[in-house]
Amino acid sequence: MVFDFKKMDGMIPAITQDWQTGEVLMLAYMNEEAFAKTLETGKMHYYSRSRDKLWMKGESSGHVQLVKEILVDCDQDAGVFKIEQVGGAACHVGYNSCFYRAVETEGRLRIVKMQKVFEPEEVYKK
Amino acid sequence: MVFDFKKMDGMIPAITQDWQTGEVLMLAYMNEEAFAKTLETGKMHYYSRSRDKLWMKGESSGHVQLVKEILVDCDQDAGVFKIEQVGGAACHVGYNSCFYRAVETEGRLRIVKMQKVFEPEEVYKK
Repeated sequence: MVFDFKKMDGMIPAITQDWQTGEVLMLAYMNEEAFAKTLETGKMHYYSRSRDKLWMKGESSGHVQLVKEILVDCDQDAGVFKIEQVGGAACHVGYNSCFYRAVETEGRLRIVKMQKVFEPEEVYKK
Repeated sequence: MVFDFKKMDGMIPAITQDWQTGEVLMLAYMNEEAFAKTLETGKMHYYSRSRDKLWMKGESSGHVQLVKEILVDCDQDAGVFKIEQVGGAACHVGYNSCFYRAVETEGRLRIVKMQKVFEPEEVYKK
């Protein structure tokens, strides 16, 4: 067994990290099927809690994530996935990382990324 | 509001990252109280799901985590905490990171950290 999916309703949190810079790009969830698909295809698959379905990152945007290395924590209930981000942006808002804001000492949020990689309305055309 | 604690039973996943190397050290959970204590003290506090209580990292081992920067993701339901790890080890097993094992292509686990920073039985004396 690689991951213990029992602790959190059949899911584990998956930390996606740029394999070269070490920047944390996003956190999403995987169920057993998403993990199996990720291993099988070498592309990141997640389980959406809100949509209750498996999804492949980049299936709409083309910004797939190519897996380079998978790390497992001591309790086997969380993973770090080192990936190459095709298109340069992991976040659906258009930034390279979903963590594009920092907490200021006053408890407010501040945007710390300088530039969007894309504009969502241009990429997610329906 | 910095974090939306409602999505996961009052908790968010907190990714702890070495502020200098960018290495992901651990993933644990915070409830609103743990986050408030972290902001107030500048030391990482978590909420233990198994023990159902607030804890400060390092309260037994002395290996506290000093907060340098807090990043918030697009959905405001996950955080990256860049920290300085006192004592050099974040993992209770004695490695600097909890993510000390990698998945091999055969689906087995392999230890990728070369050396433990401490031996648990020497640090967690009861």
